[in-house]
Order: sequence, then C-alpha cells, then structure tokens
Amino acid sequence: MSSSDESPESMPTDYEIAQSVKKQPITDIVESFGLSPDDLEQYGEYKAKVKLDAIERILTERTADGKLILVTGMTPTPMGEGKTVTTVGLGQAFNQIGKDALIAIREPSLGPVFGVKGGAAGGGWSQVLPMEDINLHFTGDIHALTAAHNLISTMLDNHFTQGNDLNIDVNEVRWKRAIDMNDRVLRETVIGLGGKTGGRPREGGFILTAASELMAVLCLADSIEDIKERVSRIIVAYDEDGAPVTVDDIDATGSVAILLKEALKPNVVQTIEGTPAFVHGGPFANIAHGTNSLMADEVASHLSEYLITEAGFGSDLGAEKFMDIVCRFGDMEPDAVTLVASVRALKYHGLDMWPPELDALEDEDIGAVQRGFENLDKHVENLQKFGVPVVVAVNRFPGDTDREVETVIEHCESELGIDAAESNVFSDGGEGGIDLAEKLTSAAESESQFEPLYSVDASIKEKIETVATEIYGSDGVEYHGDAEADIQQLTELGLDDVPVCMSKTFHSLSDDPSLKGVPDDWTLEVKEVYPSAGAGFLVVLTGDVLTLPGLPGEPAAAEMDIDPDGTVSGLF
Amino acid sequence: MSSSDESPESMPTDYEIAQSVKKQPITDIVESFGLSPDDLEQYGEYKAKVKLDAIERILTERTADGKLILVTGMTPTPMGEGKTVTTVGLGQAFNQIGKDALIAIREPSLGPVFGVKGGAAGGGWSQVLPMEDINLHFTGDIHALTAAHNLISTMLDNHFTQGNDLNIDVNEVRWKRAIDMNDRVLRETVIGLGGKTGGRPREGGFILTAASELMAVLCLADSIEDIKERVSRIIVAYDEDGAPVTVDDIDATGSVAILLKEALKPNVVQTIEGTPAFVHGGPFANIAHGTNSLMADEVASHLSEYLITEAGFGSDLGAEKFMDIVCRFGDMEPDAVTLVASVRALKYHGLDMWPPELDALEDEDIGAVQRGFENLDKHVENLQKFGVPVVVAVNRFPGDTDREVETVIEHCESELGIDAAESNVFSDGGEGGIDLAEKLTSAAESESQFEPLYSVDASIKEKIETVATEIYGSDGVEYHGDAEADIQQLTELGLDDVPVCMSKTFHSLSDDPSLKGVPDDWTLEVKEVYPSAGAGFLVVLTGDVLTLPGLPGEPAAAEMDIDPDGTVSGLF
Repeated sequence: MSSSDESPESMPTDYEIAQSVKKQPITDIVESFGLSPDDLEQYGEYKAKVKLDAIERILTERTADGKLILVTGMTPTPMGEGKTVTTVGLGQAFNQIGKDALIAIREPSLGPVFGVKGGAAGGGWSQVLPMEDINLHFTGDIHALTAAHNLISTMLDNHFTQGNDLNIDVNEVRWKRAIDMNDRVLRETVIGLGGKTGGRPREGGFILTAASELMAVLCLADSIEDIKERVSRIIVAYDEDGAPVTVDDIDATGSVAILLKEALKPNVVQTIEGTPAFVHGGPFANIAHGTNSLMADEVASHLSEYLITEAGFGSDLGAEKFMDIVCRFGDMEPDAVTLVASVRALKYHGLDMWPPELDALEDEDIGAVQRGFENLDKHVENLQKFGVPVVVAVNRFPGDTDREVETVIEHCESELGIDAAESNVFSDGGEGGIDLAEKLTSAAESESQFEPLYSVDASIKEKIETVATEIYGSDGVEYHGDAEADIQQLTELGLDDVPVCMSKTFHSLSDDPSLKGVPDDWTLEVKEVYPSAGAGFLVVLTGDVLTLPGLPGEPAAAEMDIDPDGTVSGLF
Repeated sequence: MSSSDESPESMPTDYEIAQSVKKQPITDIVESFGLSPDDLEQYGEYKAKVKLDAIERILTERTADGKLILVTGMTPTPMGEGKTVTTVGLGQAFNQIGKDALIAIREPSLGPVFGVKGGAAGGGWSQVLPMEDINLHFTGDIHALTAAHNLISTMLDNHFTQGNDLNIDVNEVRWKRAIDMNDRVLRETVIGLGGKTGGRPREGGFILTAASELMAVLCLADSIEDIKERVSRIIVAYDEDGAPVTVDDIDATGSVAILLKEALKPNVVQTIEGTPAFVHGGPFANIAHGTNSLMADEVASHLSEYLITEAGFGSDLGAEKFMDIVCRFGDMEPDAVTLVASVRALKYHGLDMWPPELDALEDEDIGAVQRGFENLDKHVENLQKFGVPVVVAVNRFPGDTDREVETVIEHCESELGIDAAESNVFSDGGEGGIDLAEKLTSAAESESQFEPLYSVDASIKEKIETVATEIYGSDGVEYHGDAEADIQQLTELGLDDVPVCMSKTFHSLSDDPSLKGVPDDWTLEVKEVYPSAGAGFLVVLTGDVLTLPGLPGEPAAAEMDIDPDGTVSGLF
C-alpha cells in the first residue's frame, strides 16, 4: 500500500522516483538466485514469468531452507499503514546487510488503482518496478482471471438458454460475474432482459476479480493438473433437488484452465534496489485468503536465504489465513512475523475515531498513541498464539515526531518484551530498514514453535468459534439467517473437514467497523457459510461484505494523464 | 476465419499443424524488413510489439512504396469463406515467388473463439503463430480495451452517484459496458439496484469489446496524442438540454489513454512459413470499420514490397469501409483487391438458402454454382466502382469438385473479363496460392484509379443513399423512428462532414438476412444515426444489429481441454 499520500511536497512522486532508477534486465536480477534466462518467459526486458518446468526443477533439486518472514499489520486506518512498502523495503534491507532475500507480494487490482489508492506497488524508495506496468495490465493475470470467471458465468447462463438439462434452480445460482473496476452499479443487477433472445431473466451481480474464487484457486494451485482439478469442483449453483452444480457439470473446466495457464506462472520483477520480487495473485483478504500465490512463496523459499511475504490487513485477517490456510496447504512455516504499526494508526485507535478523520491524526498526541497500544498488543498476542516470534515495525510517516515513535518502541520492548524497530524504508529505501532486518534475523533464528490455530477435523462451529474468541476477542458466536442450515448441509455433504476463511471487516478486530482498539462484550454474528470448493475452504460471512467497491468522489483516475512521449502521471 | 471445420479427418488439426512447425525468434523474422531487436518489445520469444518511436522513424525515413492488396469476400455462409486463411496464405505465396510481403489481420476475440469459431488465426497450413496465444490473451490488447471501455462506464455512473454536476440525462446514456465474451444475458440489463449504495438505477447493457468505439479509435489512431484527442471527444451521453457529454467531460481521458498505451503498439508475429504478420486490432465490420489497425497497415506498407490486409465480411461491409473510411483517413490506396469466393458460398446463393443448411452444400451442383454467380458478380462490380483491379480467389474446400472450381474460374475470365485463381493455401500453404499471387502481382502493376465512393462534403443522406444504391443495390432509403431527427441534429451540430459507417447484416447484400443472391425491389431502412466522434464517422443503423452475440448449443469452449504439460486441444 502506498504511503505517498503522506509525502511532503518536496519529495518526488513515486512515479518520478521509479523513473529515476536505472533498472537492470530481469534476467540479470534473478541469475544469481539460480534462474537462467531459459527458465523465464520475458514480458519486455523487466518483467518475466517463471516457466512451470523450471519451478518443478527447483522444487525437486533444492531444499526449502530459506527463512520465511511474514509481514502483517495492526488494524489499519483506511489509508493503510504501509505493509507493501515495508515488505519491499525489508527485502532491500536484507540485501544491504549481506543476506540473500526475495520478496513476494500481491498484484495490484485496477479497481483500487483508479479508485482511492492510485497504485499498489510500494512507494517512495521501496517500490517494485516497473511500477506503471505492475499497476496497470502487468502480465495480464487479472485480465485472464476476469475472462475465465466470466466464461463460467456465460457457460452457466447459456445452459439455461439451451434448455437447462441439469435442472439448475435459477434462484440458486452462486456464481456472479467479475470485473476489475470499482463499478458499484454492477453489484446488484437484473440480467437476461429483452425477450427470448436475451436469455433467461434473473437477478445477477458482479464482484471485483480479486474476490473471485478463481483468484483464490490460482493462488493455491501448484500445477496445471491441480488448477484443473480445483476449477472442476467449484460450485456454481444448486439444482432443483439442492445438489451442487459444478464448473465441470457445465463443461467449462478445460476452457477455463486454458485461460489461466499463463496466469498460473509466477511473475518476477525487481525492487528499486534490485531485489527480485515475486508479484503474483491478489485475492481479497476477506472472502479469500489474501496472500500472493503459494507457488511464488514456494519457489522463492527454495531460491533464497530469506523470503519476505505479505498478508493483507491485520493479524485477524490475512495473517490468520496465511497460517491457518496457506501454510497448512503449502506445508510451510513462518520463521518470524513483522507487525507493521504506525503512529497514525495508534492515534486512530486511541482517539476511538469513526468515521476516520485523517487530518486529526497529524498533531503530536502521545496520550492517543498510548491509548492505541491495546490494539497493537492484541495483534502481537494473536500472532504469538501461532508460536511465531514477532517484531514490530514502526513505519514512519513524515508527520510523526521522534517522541511518538520512541514511545511505541519503548512500549514493545519493555511492556511486551519483544523487539521493535523504526522503519524508514519509504524515504530511505533498504537502508531505512536495516535495524528492522537485523532484529528479524535474530528472531528468525529461534526454533519455530509454529502451529495452526485449529485442527481441520474440528467441527465447522468449533473452527469458527476458535477464531472468533481467540483472535477477534469475541465472547462467542451467533448464527443468523441460514447460517445454521448452511453448516448442517455442508457437514452432511462431507465438506466440513477444511479450514474456515472468515469474512470480516478490516476496520475493527470485531465485526463492527466502528469499534476501535480491542472491542469487548460482543458476539460475532455469522450470516452465511458457503464452500469455496475449488480453493478448499469454507467462507464464513460476518457483517456486510463488499465484494465490489465503488469509486470515491474524487477518483484517482480523474487525475491521471499521459504525455505524447508515454510519460504517465497520477499513478502512485 | 478458420476453415478447419471442413477438413477431412485425415488432416491434422490446426493446433497440431501449428505445434509441428518450428518457429523462429520474432527478432529474426522481422530483421530483414528493417526492424531491429531494439525496435521491439518482446512478449516471449515469438510475439512482439513495435515501439512507437520505431514506427515514427520508419514513417519518416522510408517511403510507402509497398503495394497494398486488400482481401475481401462475397456474401458468406455463416461459416465464412476463408478470408483470413487466404490473407495468410497469400503472404506466404508472395514469399514463395520471391517477393517481400507482410500481412495484416485482426486480433481474434474471445467471444467467437469460445462460441462458434474456436479460433481466428487462419487455418491449416496458412496460420499465424503461436496460434494458441493469438487466439487467447495474445498481448492483452483486447483486455486493455475492455478495461478502458469499462473505466469510462464506471466514471460515468460514478458521476451520477456523486451528484451529477453535468446534469446528464439518465435516459440518454449512450455508452454501454463491454465484455469479450458471447454472454447474451448481458445485452439488456438493469443496473444500480440494491438501494442507495448501489448507485442510480437505470437500464444498461453490454456490447462485445470488438464493438466498442474504443476499438475503432485504437484502429485509427496514429500516436498517443491522437488517441487522447479521439478518446476525449467520444460522446457518452447527452445532458438535460440535449448537449453531448464527452469522455473528457467526465475526466476519463487521461486514465483511458494510459490503459491503451501498450495496446496502441502494433503486434508482430509470424506465419507458418515465416512471413511477418501484423495482428492488431479487431473492430466489428458492422458498427465499426472492420479492419486491423491503420497504424499496422501504415508501418507495414513502409517495410515491404507487398502488404496483404484483410477487411471483414464482403465488399458491401469491410471493403467499402476500408476504402471510404480507412484509406481516406490514412491517405492510402489499394493497388488490387482479391475477392474470396467459394463453391460452397455460390451454392448457398444459388439454392437461395435461408436458414443455412450447410450439409446440403456438400454435393456437386453446377447449376447452383452458376445461379450463385450473380452475388459474386455484384461484389466484383462494387469493388470496380472504387477503381481498383479485382482478382477472384476460389478458396478450395475439401468437398469441392474440379468441375465446380473450373466453372467459377471460367465464369470470371470469360464473363467478367477478370483474373481468377484457385487457392489451396489451407491444405498446401503458400504453394497453394502461387497462381493467385502471380495474378495479383500483375493486377497491382496497373495504374491505380482509386477513388472513394462519395465526398465527405455531401450531406448525410446523400452519403447513405450513395452506399445504399451503388453498393447494396437498393432502390432507395427510408428513414424510420428518430433517424430523420438524428440526421438533422448531427447536421446542426456540424458533425455531418465525416464518412458514414453503415451497420448492416452480413448475411445479405440487402438489410434482410434471408435474401440471397442480389436482392432487387427493396428499400434500405435506416433506424438510427449516431456519431462515433472519437473514431470520426457516423454510424448508420439498419435492421437489428447484434453487438453482443450468444453462445450456441454446443459452444467451442465445451470441447476445449489442456494436458498437464500445457498442450491444449479444441482450439482451431
């Protein structure tokens, strides 16, 4: 997440910084890590995909002895606390202290790029390059996912048009259409109008491509065979008898897999300081698991001493899912976690602010920082429950005072007994993260006690309740609407022995976005439970989940421009 | 258009043929034409985009002394007569007779690839490679167009949500959404449902990306500056006072141009025999001009002795538009036209068949062939009206008898007094087109008498009536609905001094798809006239125009598959 919105006017824009750097050919960047030019499919000089046979070779020939560092954050303000910047900066910092390191992050989605964020390739002196390509079409993965998602929709509705041999219940279609654009008017629609030639009328809607189960599938699959298998079992509807109808039932498995065959290959680019960076996949951290592809993590951990990988949102969302879903599926263990905090976010919790007023966070306010510690502390506690060492990174923003930053570090060291470091990777690149990298090196040396939070063999309710009470701090769980019936049906169908993927707001540790700090005396409200059978988990919906955002009053898109020579502006 | 549906079982599939060919690095393919590796942005080893500064250099340093050969066809059966195959084969045939030649064709759309066609990269031994990439995501141009198109839609509907400062009339929105999928249920929809957070409810619909004005814009623009200028003036709606609202008014010009900056660069690949092939852009030949990008044609005609370029559908659609719109805008002149005919299509007209029964065309029927000549003759006559020499190519299908083919050639030579040649490029590659290439060489030597059919200074009605009577053979034109009012408004707005882009069925020379041969005693019915202000022409709608097709009962997608090693099947 970019922090450039906080940069003073004297600092060049992210794009200007990116343009000022002389990039090296991507083949040179990865060569010392054991990837030859023949292992790559180049997209221009600075972007490449790693071929699947190269990955197979690496996973066979080498061992995964790289240390895995996970980057997550406290409950953020809507502007984010700089997890991507920290991830990129940390990779560079490890290189600066003489360690081989790779980073792995998610691909930006055009929705937020044109909406609030304007870009998601890091920021300042900790960016991945070429940032303008990565923020736009990149190597086409998200476009491929959009097309593949909508091919399923098209095949499904064509099945109705051609006579509905499968007896699909028109009110039980569970597969929406997808678009990579923050286009709120597509959330709820009526389709199939205009008479017989327009197909069968029904309610339908769109989700952002990042929220598609196909995105989750792509980020968990490890081969073409695996992606086909996962795609085939995705449930798209139920028939008149209540039986699931899958992608395979509507004859779309092969064509969907064909559309995804290139997207499956991890992308590799470089950071501003020449650290290789895998940028691959970008699932939502609410209705999916929210981390870059497992395949990128796996290959990267076979190539380097350190892999720094990012999970979306806080310990309650991306990190919990990384440990309970991704590590379980991928047989991986994080060796250390860095929890990104900011003075701004601490004040936001300390001032118990909702809706957020970012301007009010600009002034020094040690009391507010201190009152915000409870949120930070809960995230630390959550991460420690998985048995992994935690180092707090205080991502410094221009308005932060020394006193504020020192207060946070002092608190972590003396109250929590854990390491903490100021991080200035936005303004100073890798050098700004050396202290943090050194502390993480030590932390990662300790014997890992990693363990997922729950066993998949527990009942669905037990798994939900474990996450709710242990991680979110709720008193318990209430089931509303059809949630009880969903759980019973899933159990009867034998779909209960998989992890749960909790869908919850990122604005609060609770399911109520307005509650800051560590909410107490509350009960998690579960509204629906449904299978992501292709991904291999159950999605548990709590509160309202926005799977298709809208544009704000002043969208980033409105400020973008391009000169006749191709120089762009407004991306950051 | 693929002809493989006609291939006997003994012949390998298009994909098998494509896989059997050893491709050369694209850098080697284009080097002898004056393009160095530095002029290219490579997408893997076999696909590249030509950089814009290289194009500028070529257009400045070299002269356009290449001969321009246009490929068009008679009124086709729904399976097509093989224009793309002929175009690709001709390029190869010119090489075989020792001439430098390049070809230029359109990019396939995923809609038809997954629908009826299964692919659109030529067929048999006259294909462009890598066919599976070209048929799928290729270099991402169409995905970029889809995203750019929908960014405009999103910005427009967000304008409503944010208060509608421009006073846009919700019933006068003229910009639909786009999708590259034959998804009929999206043709007519209601969007913006679900209460206030879902935006303003209104009727909305989707078109195929190939039908987007942005596709036409991309195919006519010659620089980033030009594309920005064209995008800015696209009319997306009218306000409460009836005044046009443009892309620029809704602040989307810059961001849309940014999304299109890579798509603007022409793609170059190779044919099976190593002829360089520009594959760039793919506008509909009904509501747009239906030919590959002007930029590809321009650069190609500066690089080679011969450029073979294809126009969609018949002389009444793609060819008329190529000459009246593209050549006018690009200051180009075709030196010769080859009109692709087939025994099958002649019988289809001779048997006055509607709806088509393709099986009934399999048996020898000289009488039907002869009765079909009137359609062929009218297309020849149409092309001759532009002052260009015509050579008929009889694209041979496996079931055609020698007698049938000879009857066609004899007719052209003795009755029409023009050259004709059998073309076997599908089964024999370039060698199967040598006779045709030689005849075209002679034809292209004659002094060009090229002239567009009408002057842009004529009134809108005069332009429409000229095309209707001269090319379609109608007795006149009737204006229905708002067409008269449209014409009056456009004239008042001063938007009348541009070419007309006629939207008409390709199933008939008339506006009634059921009429074969050369319909007489009919009047063209014009329903609507609207400006494509970015492209620079007026679209004239006649009959029902399907801008978003649907999938058939047995979509090509249902037969596609991929092996664990990445080998695909079902693409042809």
